[in-house]
Amino acid sequence: MAGRERNPERSRERIIEAALGEFAAKGFAGARVAAIARRAGLNQQLISHHFGGKLGLYRAVMAQRRRRGGGELIGVPEQMPDALADFFDRAGGDPDWVRVLLWEALEAPETGAEVAGRDERRARYDERVAWVESEQEAGRLPTDLDPTMLLMTLLGSALYPLLLPDVCEIMTGERPGSPRFDERYRAHLRGFAGHLGVGSLSGRA
Amino acid sequence: MAGRERNPERSRERIIEAALGEFAAKGFAGARVAAIARRAGLNQQLISHHFGGKLGLYRAVMAQRRRRGGGELIGVPEQMPDALADFFDRAGGDPDWVRVLLWEALEAPETGAEVAGRDERRARYDERVAWVESEQEAGRLPTDLDPTMLLMTLLGSALYPLLLPDVCEIMTGERPGSPRFDERYRAHLRGFAGHLGVGSLSGRA
Repeated sequence: MAGRERNPERSRERIIEAALGEFAAKGFAGARVAAIARRAGLNQQLISHHFGGKLGLYRAVMAQRRRRGGGELIGVPEQMPDALADFFDRAGGDPDWVRVLLWEALEAPETGAEVAGRDERRARYDERVAWVESEQEAGRLPTDLDPTMLLMTLLGSALYPLLLPDVCEIMTGERPGSPRFDERYRAHLRGFAGHLGVGSLSGRA
Repeated sequence: MAGRERNPERSRERIIEAALGEFAAKGFAGARVAAIARRAGLNQQLISHHFGGKLGLYRAVMAQRRRRGGGELIGVPEQMPDALADFFDRAGGDPDWVRVLLWEALEAPETGAEVAGRDERRARYDERVAWVESEQEAGRLPTDLDPTMLLMTLLGSALYPLLLPDVCEIMTGERPGSPRFDERYRAHLRGFAGHLGVGSLSGRA
């Protein structure tokens, strides 16, 4: 079967995209290799051939998919104070990836940092830490804060409505993902981020 | 069976606590009423009697449990700039509740804001919005930001390592929940929060 593949690279990509959808929908434990093969329109044996099985495929999704996909780690971020709204938009445009991260939080250690593409993902976060440092040097973020710690805080600020949409709907009466909520949150993030720049006098009315 | 109950209020509490553990472990879809009865050491029929079934029990957990439990919404928060580390500690001390919120994000709409204790939970968040307003009035938070939007941003900042621990372990090499990570993040949150006070010159080195 695998021997007759016309374009192995294209098959791998189709499988990884299909797997992302299945893992996003069902989590690692609930995902079925047969369903991934159906989504990809390819024979299930090709998945064994390319990835060795469900865990190997999961690792490949977590490690490789970000190179091409969307999400808060892809591309060059806007400068502060626009960067937080930019992270919110990037992650909001990649809901399958957000779901995979939520599943990871619930299913670890089976699927956590130990197994799922730690090195490749670390490299992407290191790029974002370097971005924080450059924003600190430019005076757009406080220089007395550890850049890795600050990155977590900024991502948490930007992504909270995407991570816990029901909580935020309860708080505001509007659904994250609706144009009305998203526009409000974007505008808020710009104002919030403005308070973090050097020389910004926080609390200005 | 239900007619012979000695202390119905105590039974309800035991069922709700057992259900929180089961929903935290398995999610709504994966939770089994029989397993909840076993965890509570009570007959399964009592669950039907008190809650009508799994969905009724889930609603009761989401609506009622916070009155007694821990988590970031219980108790009076510290003042800024200590409040963010305080939210981090409160939520970190209530991991089952954090897991239930992550499951909710993945399983909605079946278990989302529409069905799960919206009014009771809204009241708790309203208390926190009032707290944000009082911190704004005291000059410890910027007054030009919408207090509900600001609450989401502050909670996201404080809770991100608890919501996505594997991401944060990849970033830092340390596990959220470990004393070393938690102490670093607490100290960072105090520094970060200090930049949000009126008259704080952000970016001070």
